[in-house]
Amino acid sequence: MTAIASLINHQVRLAARPTGLPTRANWNFTTEPVAEPGSGGVLIKTLYLSLDPAMRGWMNEGKSYIPPVEIGAVMRAGGIGKVIASHDPAFAVGDYVNAGLDVQEYCLIPEAQIKRSGMFKIDARLGLTTWLNVLGMPGMTGYFGLMDVGQPKAGDTVVVSGAAGAVGQTVGQIAKLKGCRVVGIAGGKAKCDWVVNELGFDACIDYKAGDVKAGLKEHCPKGVDIYFDNVGGDILDAVLTRITRGARIIICGAISQYNNTTPVKGPANYLSLLVNRARMEGIVVFDYADRYPLAIAEMAGYLKDGKMKSREDVAQGLENFPETLLKLFNGENFGKLVLQVAKE
Amino acid sequence: MTAIASLINHQVRLAARPTGLPTRANWNFTTEPVAEPGSGGVLIKTLYLSLDPAMRGWMNEGKSYIPPVEIGAVMRAGGIGKVIASHDPAFAVGDYVNAGLDVQEYCLIPEAQIKRSGMFKIDARLGLTTWLNVLGMPGMTGYFGLMDVGQPKAGDTVVVSGAAGAVGQTVGQIAKLKGCRVVGIAGGKAKCDWVVNELGFDACIDYKAGDVKAGLKEHCPKGVDIYFDNVGGDILDAVLTRITRGARIIICGAISQYNNTTPVKGPANYLSLLVNRARMEGIVVFDYADRYPLAIAEMAGYLKDGKMKSREDVAQGLENFPETLLKLFNGENFGKLVLQVAKE
Repeated sequence: MTAIASLINHQVRLAARPTGLPTRANWNFTTEPVAEPGSGGVLIKTLYLSLDPAMRGWMNEGKSYIPPVEIGAVMRAGGIGKVIASHDPAFAVGDYVNAGLDVQEYCLIPEAQIKRSGMFKIDARLGLTTWLNVLGMPGMTGYFGLMDVGQPKAGDTVVVSGAAGAVGQTVGQIAKLKGCRVVGIAGGKAKCDWVVNELGFDACIDYKAGDVKAGLKEHCPKGVDIYFDNVGGDILDAVLTRITRGARIIICGAISQYNNTTPVKGPANYLSLLVNRARMEGIVVFDYADRYPLAIAEMAGYLKDGKMKSREDVAQGLENFPETLLKLFNGENFGKLVLQVAKE
Repeated sequence: MTAIASLINHQVRLAARPTGLPTRANWNFTTEPVAEPGSGGVLIKTLYLSLDPAMRGWMNEGKSYIPPVEIGAVMRAGGIGKVIASHDPAFAVGDYVNAGLDVQEYCLIPEAQIKRSGMFKIDARLGLTTWLNVLGMPGMTGYFGLMDVGQPKAGDTVVVSGAAGAVGQTVGQIAKLKGCRVVGIAGGKAKCDWVVNELGFDACIDYKAGDVKAGLKEHCPKGVDIYFDNVGGDILDAVLTRITRGARIIICGAISQYNNTTPVKGPANYLSLLVNRARMEGIVVFDYADRYPLAIAEMAGYLKDGKMKSREDVAQGLENFPETLLKLFNGENFGKLVLQVAKE
């Protein structure tokens, strides 16, 4: 074991708020020595970081569901790490944990922040990166958005955009397990084939290949009862033309709009909500924190039984963080995007 | 009593579907003899017709919550009339009724259609036009939209646009009676003064006089818990920036968009639903038909006790229907717009 005092922590800090897509100029690469944890504190070595569309929002100034990342601060990120020093009896050296590690190689969590950080030990036998995907925040978002806001009934038609992404793969697989007809929307044949052939979706519409409206008409002959929206923009508008009476639209994100330099495009077809007595409702995963363990237990069961899959797209190296993040916005990632920062 | 056979029925028929605001060219004025009602049927003399923003939607082709008015058909309208001949024991000559009378002087309702038409006798002591306003469809829309979709709690801040209109005056007054803080949005000082001074709203923002956003900030210091939207467009977007966590937005109409010749403007700030875990939900009044009697009984009680008011703007003459309808879209009407077709 290396002496902690000799370790250097490489970090990625927010240098400037971006306009449109973030570039290298928005980031600063810094180093600082790694400190020993104080009384009750824990030191974690980062193994994998979760890269999420929501990060783009955290880079903006102004009120949102959590405060923005301050200029000069280490970029916020959740991740999987290994405990390398601990003065907390709940965590032992060698434990794998899921925690808010931020974009850096080592994360020191003082005693006062351990509870607030939501750090918890994970079962590595289910795969480390799985805990950033269907068993992590995206999985929780998909699970509670679908179940609590969407309220699926067997036989409902559920459409999910970003179908091969982290949230989308959870939503679609859970909806299938609940007896729904599931239609994905994704970019490219490979992703569409994967969600149909590997995850068991009933169909998947390739938005890059053709008309989403025509695809919805073909694959949702009875209309759309639940739409789980990760993208916004024209796809949201297309789905609004096909919803059923009393439909539920879960607003989880709007990746098509996050890097806009022009105003967000609102859903022009929103009056379909009126005609169809339908509702559109936002979800923020943190509201369900007290029920994460229940959702994790349910989904871990599915994973063990082979009823559910979790696919991650693993990029390498902290120094590649800026470019890797962009893969989310050009649709290059295939599965939950994760950055491996270190080998164990 | 005039012999029925000698009566002539003047009617207003849809001649062509409008683009933008309807003009005289969209209407045909026709006459036909009045027929005696057959077995079980009822003949009604139209006294007052209800003029509503929703009529603009009925003039368009295509699927909505009810079928469009066909080209050549008498324009659809609800109204108050007096029974002048009846072969239905439930209705006597001289009874005042609320029914789908359409834009014509006489309406013959055959036996087979009486039940489906929802025709019912009204208590004229509460005022005839009141039954097209707070005790009519707009009142039912306001009542159930607010109570069922909005779910107000005492202390909530409720904002309603079209505040001096038929739906708006009901929503605001009911919300006050339920213990809410009520802020209206209306066009012009006279309407704003009226809803505050006569109806007891806490404040009213004159959208023609200034910045709606600034008004919301001033009059809704704790944010907006419920927004009852009759107008859409920029006002909906402004309110979206001020909603509270868990807010409810009732989509009742979008009068600012009904005569568009360009695409509807969707709410660019809809992602506020996500940040605030809020929902936007459409309402169509017909879904609550089995509970109209309860709402009418409650509101009739308020009217009798002087706890609620009902203001109508009464125009005269079937021949003025085309121009009178336009008052809804330029905001000229002050109170529920009604067309008096005949004296009793």
